[in-house]
Parts: sequence; structure tokens; C-alpha cells
Amino acid sequence: MNNMTNGVFKHETTGTLMKEGFIALQDTYTAENAISHLRKNVQGRTNIHYLYILNSDSQLIGVLSIRELLGASDDEWITNIMETDIISFPTDLDQEEAAKVFRDKDLVSIPVVNRANQLIGVIHVEEILDVIQQEADEDIRKLSASGKEIDFRTNPFVAAWRRLPWLVLLLFIGLISGGIIERFEATLEAVVALAFFMPMIAGMTGNTGTQSLAVVVRGLVSEDITFNKSMKLLFRELIVGIIIGITCAIVIAIIAFVWRGSLTLGLVVGSSLLATLIIGTLAGTVIPLLLYKFKVDPAVASGPLITTINDILSLLIYFGIATIFISKLM
Amino acid sequence: MNNMTNGVFKHETTGTLMKEGFIALQDTYTAENAISHLRKNVQGRTNIHYLYILNSDSQLIGVLSIRELLGASDDEWITNIMETDIISFPTDLDQEEAAKVFRDKDLVSIPVVNRANQLIGVIHVEEILDVIQQEADEDIRKLSASGKEIDFRTNPFVAAWRRLPWLVLLLFIGLISGGIIERFEATLEAVVALAFFMPMIAGMTGNTGTQSLAVVVRGLVSEDITFNKSMKLLFRELIVGIIIGITCAIVIAIIAFVWRGSLTLGLVVGSSLLATLIIGTLAGTVIPLLLYKFKVDPAVASGPLITTINDILSLLIYFGIATIFISKLM
Repeated sequence: MNNMTNGVFKHETTGTLMKEGFIALQDTYTAENAISHLRKNVQGRTNIHYLYILNSDSQLIGVLSIRELLGASDDEWITNIMETDIISFPTDLDQEEAAKVFRDKDLVSIPVVNRANQLIGVIHVEEILDVIQQEADEDIRKLSASGKEIDFRTNPFVAAWRRLPWLVLLLFIGLISGGIIERFEATLEAVVALAFFMPMIAGMTGNTGTQSLAVVVRGLVSEDITFNKSMKLLFRELIVGIIIGITCAIVIAIIAFVWRGSLTLGLVVGSSLLATLIIGTLAGTVIPLLLYKFKVDPAVASGPLITTINDILSLLIYFGIATIFISKLM
Repeated sequence: MNNMTNGVFKHETTGTLMKEGFIALQDTYTAENAISHLRKNVQGRTNIHYLYILNSDSQLIGVLSIRELLGASDDEWITNIMETDIISFPTDLDQEEAAKVFRDKDLVSIPVVNRANQLIGVIHVEEILDVIQQEADEDIRKLSASGKEIDFRTNPFVAAWRRLPWLVLLLFIGLISGGIIERFEATLEAVVALAFFMPMIAGMTGNTGTQSLAVVVRGLVSEDITFNKSMKLLFRELIVGIIIGITCAIVIAIIAFVWRGSLTLGLVVGSSLLATLIIGTLAGTVIPLLLYKFKVDPAVASGPLITTINDILSLLIYFGIATIFISKLM
């Protein structure tokens, strides 16, 4: 067994998750010997689902479940009944990746080996339950830009302090929308009714973006994304954006026409919504995929950030289209 | 063993999660007998971490880990070494509650009993890994209003179909903002610069609401909420809202004053932001807590829904305050 403490391993990796206290056997045992060894050494261990079989260099060469061992006849060599196609972890694997393996393989314990393939620890599924929970919490926190962990017991000053940096950043980004509207002040002064549809268009763009983002961020938890998969996903979301865009555009064009009695206004609002919903969907997909590609946690592309970026894009498109048709709107 | 199939149990409960194929022993065995019984019956079973001890009425009276059994001396009665303080599930417990117990107790298997306390199945931790993942995905999906499950393989028409109902609903709710702005048309026509800060104020209110919502929704996953806890949380979020509100209000008041050269505009925008951030924080806390109280899944209070409601409230407050000071703003 290795005498390094878990403290030397990187945070949130297999090295810090693993526990010692496993039972390892040399490869010279029979089933009967192994059971009797187990019966003498089992006291005080907490998790004994597998025995680990080592060669004379302490390298892990096989794994034997207690179930298989108990089912074997007494004089069977453990090397004959052990599983040699071993699933093991290095010490520096991210805990989220480790959780994926546990989920895929339905195992209750997975051994951790050093570079020389020597067994130095075992990760038990109980730890992984907490990892999955914790990673999901992290994703949700980032999606909602809540900053570092805040739970029911966090005191209000700490909670406010953790949430403020994001909010102040979003405040400044939000002012960009103000700058855009200022550029179109003349258009807005000429047709104040344009302001009525501003929150709805910006909001809807943010909503579709958040939906796409959620699909991508959670998808990344359970699978690895190749370039091909990204392109397929992007194409899929483009189609989704077009379908959603056309549907919502028709609805809003009719409403705008009925409400304000102007066909041009209906067409301006409808076509703006079509364009912004397609862009919102694509932004909600492309941004997290790019961050993933550049090894930034895609959940950092938080819901509020995407929403705020989409706000800005949607206002540009909306007032841009309105300005083109300004003479017909007045 | 019970001959009911899992099909008769409610979706996402312990009844549908449990598996048969456990090993149960009568309470008359010694450790030696139990081990030999185990060795004869273990083949083909997939998860054998515990033996379940039954009385003559097939009622579960004890649980014995393989580890304890192996560590016991041959002639020990299993009733002397078994654990009698048993953690077991009824068949109709929600799978999310079951996952909480697995996390809290660090167990790899938990038995399921019928009303007569007869053992009818066992839930293994491997199932719970998927449950935790799935519940987190559901929370995120609801927080982002993505509707039913959409993954990387969902075809675009299905994905659009699942996302559209929420979007159309949000579209109509978003139009309420339009109606509010229409009511304040005179104010807006008089001071078009008010429009510059509209997206920022609405956006910021939505952002704080989403942050509070995320804290509550994830908190509910890991603990049960009493009335007292709710009140404490609400009070905490009120303080958070005030701290965040004052900070952001000061920042924006200065910016508005510098940008537009009007102290009144700075005060109107700043005080509106203060009020809307406090309300946004409270709405993001109260709405999911109320839904939880009335047994509606609080994640249904999706991010976009809270954002849209906060949009409306923030516009009412902003234009309300602006209208009061309209003479000084012009």
C-alpha cells in the first residue's frame, strides 16, 4: 500500500476520493485460502465488495468479487476465477469523469493505481453519490450565476458577497442594451409603440437560449462531444430555432397587428422575433460548446450571461429592422 | 418472495426501483451454515452485499453484511450478529427520497418491505446513481423550462414540440410587459431615455430571482423544509436582496447621472433597481417555497417563468416611480 496521503492529490480527482483499507491478495491463493484470509482480515473494514489480486511487484493483475469467490470451489486458483479485464483509475482523473464510469459500468468499487499499475486505493460508490449530487449542484449554480456555494445556512452577507460579482458584471453588460437603444433613440421617439414589444422580444430570446444551454450543459455531463457531434447538435438546434421562431413570429405578428392596427408593425415585430429566436438558440448552443472545446467549464456560460448577451443581440436586430421600415411605421 | 411484478408500482418510486434476486435466510442459521448456504446459492446473483434474515412469517427481522458474516466465528448464530436496527423502504416512497437515504446512510443496498414487513425486494446503489443524475437533470430542465427530456439525439421536431408550449406561454406573459409600458406611454414619450434602462432593470431583477430560485430548488433536494426554516430563508434572502439592491442601486445611479446628466434620472433608476432587486430576490424564494408547500414540484417555477414575472413587476415599479417624478425628469 502506498503511504502518500490524499492531501498530495489535486482537488476533485480520483486521488482525493480514494480510500485505503482494501484487501489485496498475492496471486498464489486458492479460493479456500482466500476465504480464510478474508475471514481473518475482514474486521474493521467498511467496504469489501472485491478482492484485489497483486503480482509480486504489487501490480494489480486481477479483481475478484466476493460473490465469485464464495461461489468457487475450494481448490480453485484465484487467478483462474479473477476478472483480468480490470477497470481502474489513475490518481488524477476528474471526479466527474470517474462518476461517468461508475454510472456506465454499474460497479460499486473501482481501484486506483499509480503509474506503475500498483494498487494504491479504492473508490467506493458511496463517494460517487456525493460527487454526482455535488456536480449537479455546481452546474445549477453556474447556470443561475449564483457564484460559489450558497445553501440554506449561508449567512446573508456571505451569500450577497458571493452573488454580487456576477450581478455587477451583468449590470454593466446590461447597460450595453441601454447604449443600443440610445443609438436608436430617433426610431423609438418616432414610434413609441416599439417599446411595448422590447421586453417580450428580449425575454423570449433569453428563454430559448437558456433552454439550449441546459440541453448542452447536461449533455456534456453524460457524454463526450466530438466535432461531428457538435455540428450535428448545432444543426439540430438551428432547425429547432427555425421551427420555434416561425411559430412564435406568426403568433406575435397577428397580436401586434390586432393590438396596434398596423400591419407593418406586426411584420417588424414578427420578423424580429423569428431572427432573434434563431440567434438565441444558436448562441445558447455555440457558447457552451466553444467553452467546452477550450476546456472552460461550459456551465460558466451561465443562464443570466447568455440571457444578457441575447438581450443585446435581440435589441440590435429589433431596432435595426424597425429603422429600415421606419417610414412605414409612422 | 412476492410475486407482484414491478409494473404495479407507481412510476419513480421504490417499488419500481427494487430488484428481486436477494438472498434471504431463516433466523435459525449459524454463521457456518449461512456461509455454506451462500456459497451454494451465490451463482448468478449480481449484487450480494447483505443477507436478509426472515422469521417464520417471512418478515424481515435482521440484515447481515457479508463482511460481518465472514468475520464471525463458525458457530455464532446469525441472529446474534445481524443488525436489527434495519433501514428499509415501503414500496411507494418517491425515488428522490430514497436517494436522500442512500446518501445520508452510505449504504449500498436497502431492502423494500410490504405493509406486513415482508421482504419483497432490494434497491441497489447502482440504481440510485441514475436516480440522482436523473433528478438533477429534471431540476435543470424545469429551471430552464425545457419541457420534457431533450438530449443530443432527440430529433429537431420533437425537441421544438417539447419546448414550444413553455415558449408560447412565456410569449403571452411577456406581452403583459407590453401592456404595462403602453399604460405609461405618456411617461415614456416625455422621457425616452427611460427606455435605455428598461432592459437592464428587467434583466437584473430576473437574474437575482434566478439565483434565489436555484438556491431554494437545490436546497429542497437535500433537506426537508419546515415553516421555521422557510421563514429564516425568506428573511435571509430579504437581507441579501437589500445588500445587493443597495450596491447595484448606487452603481447605476452614478452611471445614469454621469451618462444623462440628470440627478433625478439617476435617483429614479437607482431607487427602482433597489426596489426591484429586493422584490426579485423574494419572488425567487417565495414562489418555489409556496409550490413546495402545495406539493407542486418547485422546479416547475422555472427560471424563465420567474424571469418573466420579475420583468413585469420591475417595469411596473420603474415606470411607477418615473411617473411620480415625471415633472423633474423632463
